[in-house]
Amino acid sequence: MGAVRTKRKPRAVREQQMLDAAVQLFGQRGYMAASMDEIAERAGVSKPLVYLYLNSKEDLFSACIRREATALTEAVRSQVRPDMPAERQLWEGLRAFFTHTAQHPEGWAVLHRQARTQGEPFADEVAAVRAEFIAFVTQLILAAARDGVFCARGDTGPGERHEPALPEHEAAGFAEALVGAAESLAAWANATPGVTAHQAATTLMNFAWAGLGNLMEGRAWSPPAA
Amino acid sequence: MGAVRTKRKPRAVREQQMLDAAVQLFGQRGYMAASMDEIAERAGVSKPLVYLYLNSKEDLFSACIRREATALTEAVRSQVRPDMPAERQLWEGLRAFFTHTAQHPEGWAVLHRQARTQGEPFADEVAAVRAEFIAFVTQLILAAARDGVFCARGDTGPGERHEPALPEHEAAGFAEALVGAAESLAAWANATPGVTAHQAATTLMNFAWAGLGNLMEGRAWSPPAA
Repeated sequence: MGAVRTKRKPRAVREQQMLDAAVQLFGQRGYMAASMDEIAERAGVSKPLVYLYLNSKEDLFSACIRREATALTEAVRSQVRPDMPAERQLWEGLRAFFTHTAQHPEGWAVLHRQARTQGEPFADEVAAVRAEFIAFVTQLILAAARDGVFCARGDTGPGERHEPALPEHEAAGFAEALVGAAESLAAWANATPGVTAHQAATTLMNFAWAGLGNLMEGRAWSPPAA
Repeated sequence: MGAVRTKRKPRAVREQQMLDAAVQLFGQRGYMAASMDEIAERAGVSKPLVYLYLNSKEDLFSACIRREATALTEAVRSQVRPDMPAERQLWEGLRAFFTHTAQHPEGWAVLHRQARTQGEPFADEVAAVRAEFIAFVTQLILAAARDGVFCARGDTGPGERHEPALPEHEAAGFAEALVGAAESLAAWANATPGVTAHQAATTLMNFAWAGLGNLMEGRAWSPPAA
């Protein structure tokens, strides 16, 4: 593409190029170390144009966080259909999560490491996305608990509503554990050669579902006598 | 105590007062927002004395990280004896972890949130402590796997050595998941009224042990057919 054609690109295309370059540099080097000069150079645009479109380094970083958070959330939600059994929803969701974080390691680094390390406004944006994930997983676990009650009781027909076997705040605890485990494993999988998204998702299902699965069938773990 | 007696306190005591005040303020407000003036005031010493003893705000923060990391590590290790069965080690370790983080919420905030949010030297110190925890939990899971093989085979006497049933890199994956889940749950428990350390530890055992326990007995979770 010649310089003349490049100049005619619409704003949306240019912005995506800037965000692509920014996510790469922020993810690899960190927010402080990445310079607007480098970002402009890698995006193939002038620095004034970056400021014109995205205003400041802070706003550019916020735009990166929003874009990467939206992409990750959509990647997971697109694979999880509410008509699937809860176990399948969890498996498909985890597989989509680890596949996306493996394919977009810089985007994941921006969300998981860089955004948290740059103080309030950025950390708050990531915390809001995380809270949405937690709420989503909590509902999934409550749905699984209802399935579990259904199996165990066997006294109601298909499609009938059940009260959850698990109080909501306990389900929220499991969701916190699951999301924390997934975050930790995604960073580990990206840093460990030979660990695939499929393996990471299987590890977490083995860790989490077999445990939750037991619980749903009334086989709770209990502490040893003191 | 009068002012004259206070002046005679040995350096070690004064340093602990400074660190106590610093951990509180860093944990509550964050590294940037906490001022050396406030830290000195809360410690009941002059600001020059804080600089004399601890050199700079950076060094004071590093000292806080090291002290809180050591305290947490010792709290966990003191409750975990290698002669306990692996399940018991995990339970006692988790209970000690959640008890300590509940009793020292500012110390936990310094390690989990503040230290990670202030860039390289601090984040690296926390990463090193985390890596030690991961290694400790990995060995624990490998020990559990050996117990599992022992139970399943039943062909060797007590005290005989077994090869682990689980490859080390898989155990490392479970350890990453477990530590990530514990970190996430500790922050949640501290932010959620009414969640006790005992409950948080039980939630994680239900989540993790029942799952790992299944696995150790050869009941791995397997993905649904595509």
